[in-house]
Amino acid sequence: MDNRAIGFMDSGVGGLTVVREALRQLPLESVYFIGDQARLPYGPRSSHEVRHFSEQMAAFLMKKNIKMLVIACNTATSAALEDLKEKFPIPVIGVISPGSRAALKVSRNRRIGVIGTEGTIKSGAYERAILSKDNSVEVFSLACPKFVPLVESNEYDSSIAKKVVAETLQYFDNKDVDTLVLGCTHYPLLRPIIQDVMGPQVRLIDSGAETIGTVSALLDYFDIAKDSAGDQIEDHYYTTASPKSFNQIASQWLEINVKADKTEIDRLSLEDK
Amino acid sequence: MDNRAIGFMDSGVGGLTVVREALRQLPLESVYFIGDQARLPYGPRSSHEVRHFSEQMAAFLMKKNIKMLVIACNTATSAALEDLKEKFPIPVIGVISPGSRAALKVSRNRRIGVIGTEGTIKSGAYERAILSKDNSVEVFSLACPKFVPLVESNEYDSSIAKKVVAETLQYFDNKDVDTLVLGCTHYPLLRPIIQDVMGPQVRLIDSGAETIGTVSALLDYFDIAKDSAGDQIEDHYYTTASPKSFNQIASQWLEINVKADKTEIDRLSLEDK
Repeated sequence: MDNRAIGFMDSGVGGLTVVREALRQLPLESVYFIGDQARLPYGPRSSHEVRHFSEQMAAFLMKKNIKMLVIACNTATSAALEDLKEKFPIPVIGVISPGSRAALKVSRNRRIGVIGTEGTIKSGAYERAILSKDNSVEVFSLACPKFVPLVESNEYDSSIAKKVVAETLQYFDNKDVDTLVLGCTHYPLLRPIIQDVMGPQVRLIDSGAETIGTVSALLDYFDIAKDSAGDQIEDHYYTTASPKSFNQIASQWLEINVKADKTEIDRLSLEDK
Repeated sequence: MDNRAIGFMDSGVGGLTVVREALRQLPLESVYFIGDQARLPYGPRSSHEVRHFSEQMAAFLMKKNIKMLVIACNTATSAALEDLKEKFPIPVIGVISPGSRAALKVSRNRRIGVIGTEGTIKSGAYERAILSKDNSVEVFSLACPKFVPLVESNEYDSSIAKKVVAETLQYFDNKDVDTLVLGCTHYPLLRPIIQDVMGPQVRLIDSGAETIGTVSALLDYFDIAKDSAGDQIEDHYYTTASPKSFNQIASQWLEINVKADKTEIDRLSLEDK
């Protein structure tokens, strides 16, 4: 038993799609979340830079005394997972392995699509993870750099969003995939539009939601789930930008009243951790 | 990367329902399986005895140089998981946590049924695992001592099986459960009959199949999945009784030609491990 909170980090509000599943599947656990909105999007940045920012966020959450760290961001997972696993003495989990496993589990025709940021797609992390388990699969990967800004500007159900998504996903018209991995935690907010464009025969995999299954398995494996009789620790949300827009999207998406604190993570020294 | 096999152990053929999912979800991994048919059923035995037998099976598989041990038996999990986790230097996984997590994930009305052997039900392991995560759930547990013998005698789709299952599950007539955990790895062979008796509105949870999700997550977490370019290690099956009946059920259930070796595990000294 371990009554400390679980830490979640993302470049912005996308990681909240992972938190939403945590609130649903692990209602007794406490959540500490940080979104680095001041420096998003991460997608176009170099992996070196994303790794540096990720370390800063992880160090911030470590100071809050978390028991497990979830990198609720595909770009940061592909750039920094191995690094953070080595650096920190608690279990660190990314979103790419769980998403890959789920896709392999549901695909029947073994043709799997993956959409993500430029950083995630360029890293080839999904393709590697999927093929390492079954090299008979064909993987079709597409970077969708316009999607994250749509979500962060709270336009994720606008007519502009519909147009951008439809145009971008034309790439899959002749690919015959039966499964599409939403390889960015921002994308589940666009899910209804993406499903509409891809058609009902395509199974969408929410990599973040799948990750909570792994979080839960590791809580059990390491025997660090929260004691149901333990004290309730309040959930905390932090953003590196102005909380106003964050609170609006977070409250809407999580269906609770979120009041985030602003924190200036870029001034954090890694030596402080 | 770790190219060694994964070990699976059960009192008999029930654990093959877990192996079937491993062959499907983890086609590159190699399997070593042992069924202790000479001493089944485990259900009515004391937890002390089940723990002792489990240690013998685990020691046998450890000698085969496995990288991970799956206790593919609910009775043995409830009696011996903690003990085996402490004793052996590789990841050891049971079937109860994964089954509990899956039930919590799908139940809507929060009324969950659990069926298992006398040993499993008496241990209260499922109830504890479920309530520790969400104490608002009502759990209805029923021991079904007649089910394992039906499966081991290869009568799992007979008219006798239908009668026994229908009579036993009458207990749930007024319980209004929307989810039923098959808390014994033998029960998936009775699944069509159980589903028919419970009705289509009840979701059946195959604890063994769920366990393979956890196996896969831990292979990734510890970075010990098999290298897809690595040598194929042949799967091996062992039984402590005559292989004839084992081979028949295993070949039918796994849809491959299984030729098990007989091994006399009860003469194994634990000191040899």
